Amino acid sequence: MTLSHLIAAANTAHPDYYLRLYFGDVPVGLIHRQAPKTLEKYGFYLVSHALGVQWRDASANCARNSEHLAQITANMRADSYVTGWRDELFALSPSYYHAPQALIERAAMPIFGGCGYGVHINGLVRRKNGLAMWLGQRAPNKPTEPNKWDQIAAGGLPYGISAFNNMQKECREEANIPESLSQTAQSVGMVSYCWQQNNGIRADVLFLYDLFLPADFEPQNTDGEVAHFICVPLEEIPEMLREGDVKTNSALVMLDCCIRHGIITPQMPEYETLCHGLQMRNHWLSRLKNK
Amino acid sequence: MTLSHLIAAANTAHPDYYLRLYFGDVPVGLIHRQAPKTLEKYGFYLVSHALGVQWRDASANCARNSEHLAQITANMRADSYVTGWRDELFALSPSYYHAPQALIERAAMPIFGGCGYGVHINGLVRRKNGLAMWLGQRAPNKPTEPNKWDQIAAGGLPYGISAFNNMQKECREEANIPESLSQTAQSVGMVSYCWQQNNGIRADVLFLYDLFLPADFEPQNTDGEVAHFICVPLEEIPEMLREGDVKTNSALVMLDCCIRHGIITPQMPEYETLCHGLQMRNHWLSRLKNK
Repeated sequence: MTLSHLIAAANTAHPDYYLRLYFGDVPVGLIHRQAPKTLEKYGFYLVSHALGVQWRDASANCARNSEHLAQITANMRADSYVTGWRDELFALSPSYYHAPQALIERAAMPIFGGCGYGVHINGLVRRKNGLAMWLGQRAPNKPTEPNKWDQIAAGGLPYGISAFNNMQKECREEANIPESLSQTAQSVGMVSYCWQQNNGIRADVLFLYDLFLPADFEPQNTDGEVAHFICVPLEEIPEMLREGDVKTNSALVMLDCCIRHGIITPQMPEYETLCHGLQMRNHWLSRLKNK
Repeated sequence: MTLSHLIAAANTAHPDYYLRLYFGDVPVGLIHRQAPKTLEKYGFYLVSHALGVQWRDASANCARNSEHLAQITANMRADSYVTGWRDELFALSPSYYHAPQALIERAAMPIFGGCGYGVHINGLVRRKNGLAMWLGQRAPNKPTEPNKWDQIAAGGLPYGISAFNNMQKECREEANIPESLSQTAQSVGMVSYCWQQNNGIRADVLFLYDLFLPADFEPQNTDGEVAHFICVPLEEIPEMLREGDVKTNSALVMLDCCIRHGIITPQMPEYETLCHGLQMRNHWLSRLKNK
């Protein structure tokens, strides 16, 4: 497939099918137009808002909202309407920089369409002939995208931990990278996307880091999430991406890395499409209708 | 000012005020809704197209279109409707990768709203305490944005030269950087924007390069476009940007460089806005109306 197909695969949600979800007058998520009837069965009632829909029972108190949503999502879990429970709390919030309106189980985020923040780390090695990149193959028992290639370490950003600290935590857990090394990682940008899910949407922002590793360092998985690691020349990554064996959102991170390090250049006719396509979330949000 | 203001300053064109310009069925530009009457005076007649407006007299032959437009733009120049004539031909084309439908004088591009491609080079120096960046101060007699800070070298991409070769040419002309050095420059991405102009629009794409220079290298201007050069720590660039003394589109290039090199990080509440805001052209095009 073409590299542009990877952008399309991570941006399958159509703006016409979603409405902004408000708690009071604070936008916190995105609701599929076909979801309200199902949500009512679980006690999540929506009323009309000038710019979308509003949770009828929202309070100004984050703890109270969180408790209420915990009951609702527990029932969704019992019915398998929410699967892949993580016991990890994500924030429903107008942005990463605002106080959350509620904390909810990560696996339930797509239903309410909150922005899922994450950190992805490119594990890079300088070699004589250019850069190489460590890739991890996801374990066969992962709930999402088993066996696909992924960054050396990556993870969702739970509420209450900074992006940098979470990056260091994921480096430790997923690749046994000591803090002395991961503290040298450098923030290099972000990618965002809007991806239709069975019961909602992943409208996510990933914060990206480049981590240059010594030639003799070998990552080791400590939490069972990675089956094994390989180190491949960066110039071979576009071919791996074309073969389609890379995790959907991690593919965007690899495209970004190949663009920043001169592997994908203006000589390639897809260049503009790829550069633009790495930041689709805000673009998509601006095309939402209010009714 | 905030850094987000720099995004806004380079994206002043409102999509409601423009129509796509077609030569036959090929989209090549953007016409301001108030321009057709003025354009008719110069012999440039527009008729309706399903997705915008069409040049009535377009031919399938690029050379014939170019000749016809050369007459029209010469008259515009005589009236000072086009100023800052460059004697440099840019392509009117659906993209950088398509054959041009016409070649026209660069100074006339905003009237027809063709995509202006350019190359911008970050001249970087590795120092003990981090990266530093060479900046050039534009000469006081430059037709656009005199005295503003700019990249070490940058320039429009005329028809018929590759981005990489043009990058090397600008390095030579604007900063006396020899080919042996500029050939080590690395493609690192692009920025795009939609900027309202007096008589049209700059809907541009800039191809970006990082060039790491030896500590003892000093740029020298050879074509009179730069008054003088300074080398500043990269961590001081955000403050220079806030002060507003940087050329409008070059400011986007500096933001991108600070994001890629870890100076602007997710800790900064503007981070998402800045990362999204560096790729506004396609976003803007998707919001155009047809009538």
